[in-house]
Amino acid sequence: MYPGSFDPITLGHHDIVLRSLRLVDRVIVAVAETATQEKRALFDLDERIELLEDVYRDEPRVTIASFRGLLVDFARAADASIIIRGLRAVSDFEYEFQMALMNRSLSPDIEVIFMTPANRYTFLSSSLVREVARLNGDVSAFVHPIVLEAIKRRVPAKEAGG
Amino acid sequence: MYPGSFDPITLGHHDIVLRSLRLVDRVIVAVAETATQEKRALFDLDERIELLEDVYRDEPRVTIASFRGLLVDFARAADASIIIRGLRAVSDFEYEFQMALMNRSLSPDIEVIFMTPANRYTFLSSSLVREVARLNGDVSAFVHPIVLEAIKRRVPAKEAGG
Amino acid sequence: MYPGSFDPITLGHHDIVLRSLRLVDRVIVAVAETATQEKRALFDLDERIELLEDVYRDEPRVTIASFRGLLVDFARAADASIIIRGLRAVSDFEYEFQMALMNRSLSPDIEVIFMTPANRYTFLSSSLVREVARLNGDVSAFVHPIVLEAIKRRVPAKEAGG
Amino acid sequence: MYPGSFDPITLGHHDIVLRSLRLVDRVIVAVAETATQEKRALFDLDERIELLEDVYRDEPRVTIASFRGLLVDFARAADASIIIRGLRAVSDFEYEFQMALMNRSLSPDIEVIFMTPANRYTFLSSSLVREVARLNGDVSAFVHPIVLEAIKRRVPAKEAGG
Amino acid sequence: MYPGSFDPITLGHHDIVLRSLRLVDRVIVAVAETATQEKRALFDLDERIELLEDVYRDEPRVTIASFRGLLVDFARAADASIIIRGLRAVSDFEYEFQMALMNRSLSPDIEVIFMTPANRYTFLSSSLVREVARLNGDVSAFVHPIVLEAIKRRVPAKEAGG
Amino acid sequence: MYPGSFDPITLGHHDIVLRSLRLVDRVIVAVAETATQEKRALFDLDERIELLEDVYRDEPRVTIASFRGLLVDFARAADASIIIRGLRAVSDFEYEFQMALMNRSLSPDIEVIFMTPANRYTFLSSSLVREVARLNGDVSAFVHPIVLEAIKRRVPAKEAGG
Repeated sequence: MYPGSFDPITLGHHDIVLRSLRLVDRVIVAVAETATQEKRALFDLDERIELLEDVYRDEPRVTIASFRGLLVDFARAADASIIIRGLRAVSDFEYEFQMALMNRSLSPDIEVIFMTPANRYTFLSSSLVREVARLNGDVSAFVHPIVLEAIKRRVPAKEAGG
Repeated sequence: MYPGSFDPITLGHHDIVLRSLRLVDRVIVAVAETATQEKRALFDLDERIELLEDVYRDEPRVTIASFRGLLVDFARAADASIIIRGLRAVSDFEYEFQMALMNRSLSPDIEVIFMTPANRYTFLSSSLVREVARLNGDVSAFVHPIVLEAIKRRVPAKEAGG
Repeated sequence: MYPGSFDPITLGHHDIVLRSLRLVDRVIVAVAETATQEKRALFDLDERIELLEDVYRDEPRVTIASFRGLLVDFARAADASIIIRGLRAVSDFEYEFQMALMNRSLSPDIEVIFMTPANRYTFLSSSLVREVARLNGDVSAFVHPIVLEAIKRRVPAKEAGG
Repeated sequence: MYPGSFDPITLGHHDIVLRSLRLVDRVIVAVAETATQEKRALFDLDERIELLEDVYRDEPRVTIASFRGLLVDFARAADASIIIRGLRAVSDFEYEFQMALMNRSLSPDIEVIFMTPANRYTFLSSSLVREVARLNGDVSAFVHPIVLEAIKRRVPAKEAGG
Repeated sequence: MYPGSFDPITLGHHDIVLRSLRLVDRVIVAVAETATQEKRALFDLDERIELLEDVYRDEPRVTIASFRGLLVDFARAADASIIIRGLRAVSDFEYEFQMALMNRSLSPDIEVIFMTPANRYTFLSSSLVREVARLNGDVSAFVHPIVLEAIKRRVPAKEAGG
Repeated sequence: MYPGSFDPITLGHHDIVLRSLRLVDRVIVAVAETATQEKRALFDLDERIELLEDVYRDEPRVTIASFRGLLVDFARAADASIIIRGLRAVSDFEYEFQMALMNRSLSPDIEVIFMTPANRYTFLSSSLVREVARLNGDVSAFVHPIVLEAIKRRVPAKEAGG
């Protein structure tokens, strides 16, 4: 299980999904519903799920799901024994470490493992993509073409640029 | 003086209070009023103070107070010469370090000292407890029984879990 | 170009501007418009620009500007080839590093360089100044006299302190 | 494959091995020969391997090996597609991150994943165990009984303590 | 008890000693003998103790001692219930945190507290002082006059500088 | 001035040199003599200088030099007013920050600025290159062809690999 807010999925997330498929048979990309209620969201829950389903349409080993409530409860219900998290930087690490220890305390039978995306994606984050997209910057190097199209529909390029 | 937002007090905070009592004669647990106005609060100022008073009812060396305005002004008014802060992680440290230097700049006669909670509480924070509690997770390992009861009254367990 | 939100400019920012003038001929202090819409702002965009113009009234090599849209687009439009950023702490560093790599990806011809303020300002930040000022603390050691006057007009000292 | 210097194996390492066995079928604990030439070593290569073999005598899914040369070359030769590393703290993370990116650059087909030991072992390291053991401190809470016996033979308790 | 290697004591250490005296009645500055055997040492154990005794000659509340073996054993033998450590930076913090948890595990009745030196000393360390001194740099701003004299005798200024 | 140990110069260093040339007219790549006496060195001082001179043979704006003594003294003697340092990671940052503040204390007229190499070099370091080279790994992606040849002469590939 690879949980997150995916607003939107970046090429960094995508890279982690592809790497995960080399380790495990099946990956559930799980969108946290609680994370979709932020006021600075770009896509709502249904849109995020639709984008993820489009991106992984031809990959039968990837399932898309959403969950509310505790991640570990959903993982157990979905029969997932491994939670995969991406690590890019020290600030990621501290938060993820705290969450991993809390999740282990809540559910000792589920293991959290960390993976790093390709070096060229280590500076990428959904929030940076949202920010650049909102300012009409070019995010084509950071997201899947399907997501790029959705962003363009959501944030129409201004006539006179930036 | 041990200042914080205490929404709610965790076993990590409690551990720091108990350790402080081995160093100093008297500890003032001071709830910052400004910190109680966040929209994601679980307990309001009066409830936090009531919970703290219940937890330390039998410990005459612990006093509960609230303050508005600058911490160092309140510390001076309360005749407290030491401010105690807990440290769990690097991100804590950076913020606390910055605050300690600012406080020292504002009031050179008050000293800030840092203590670490027991290892089993290093991943705990009030915000994690609030988040898990709101998702109906079990926080009994993280808070005092008195606080657990208050959380259960505040966030009733749902019928069908999660 | 030295971009930021400057709400308000601190002596740490000022120190970076003075140091920059030893490296380059001309510095554009650029206020990000998007950063001025936060609800916890102390000064609005026009006020920030006015304060900056007052502070640098006698320094012809410093220009004040504001921008909306992407920083790199504005830098290119203003013919600035260097973006200067201040570094105080590890948490600064991680965020700045991510932004620098993103900006380089968006615009490879603009270089980001980092400078550190004088040691006595390493704990200073605009948000700390705002917080202390709102609590009627004395910020005269942290901001330029012109800014201090503006803060006093904005946050009148209470009669009985704190 | 779980590589390291294991001088000696701690309960933190042991915890990672046990957790790994829940994810993969077979774990090769691989002692780096180059790491055994430090002058502050407690056990030499043969002793480390012997201790590891004793600790995992009854666990057929764990194999002990040593390697010289590049880790990724050995992993490939041993047909291991996953390298497991433990993460305890930020300083670990930075070094491991650098190594993971270097290894990926040298051998893109081998994936590095990170796991965290149980919370009670997050402060443990082989070097701390060696240091405490050399000063005749009690390390029984930090190492396997088999390792404890070996340490006692190596560092006899002094008559008059510390 | 304030333990360290003190090769040599810097104004940062001195600042922590002075601050400690505001919190506790009596401070034992304890030089670790094991730390004196490094090949890059500037002063040997006896010299460090002599320098410390000179610096605190007129401060009866400061005692100088040296110890071998475990710090917590020495603290207990010296009837010290508090170990004081200075914190300057994140890298300090991680190491100190690990040591504090190890010491607590070895001796739960001794508490470690952390203090920060004055802002102007946050970049100072004994190793930096040694390095600058060996290169004939001016360290008068970083050490006590007594220590400065000892350094000058140890590292005579070269004729032609640098 | 761009100081370092350069044992050997990596493509990350090279990238910083090229970026520096966009900011300043002339760069002195300065090899610290004190850094050449480590026992784990791959190239000695003369070899490092020779390699650097070969790499920058066709770039008249780059000068190679070596220095002993304090960096700031050498910078002043060479009439360099800016010291350039590369930043890759948090651990770099802390050390560099400490050094920058020390250098500024020793010589307030010399400014230290930080630059980041291209993203693909953020995990590179001379020590990693040395380690991989010694283990007969392929470092062609990390160093200039001239340096690669020198490494091959220094560390002949073994017959049977690894």
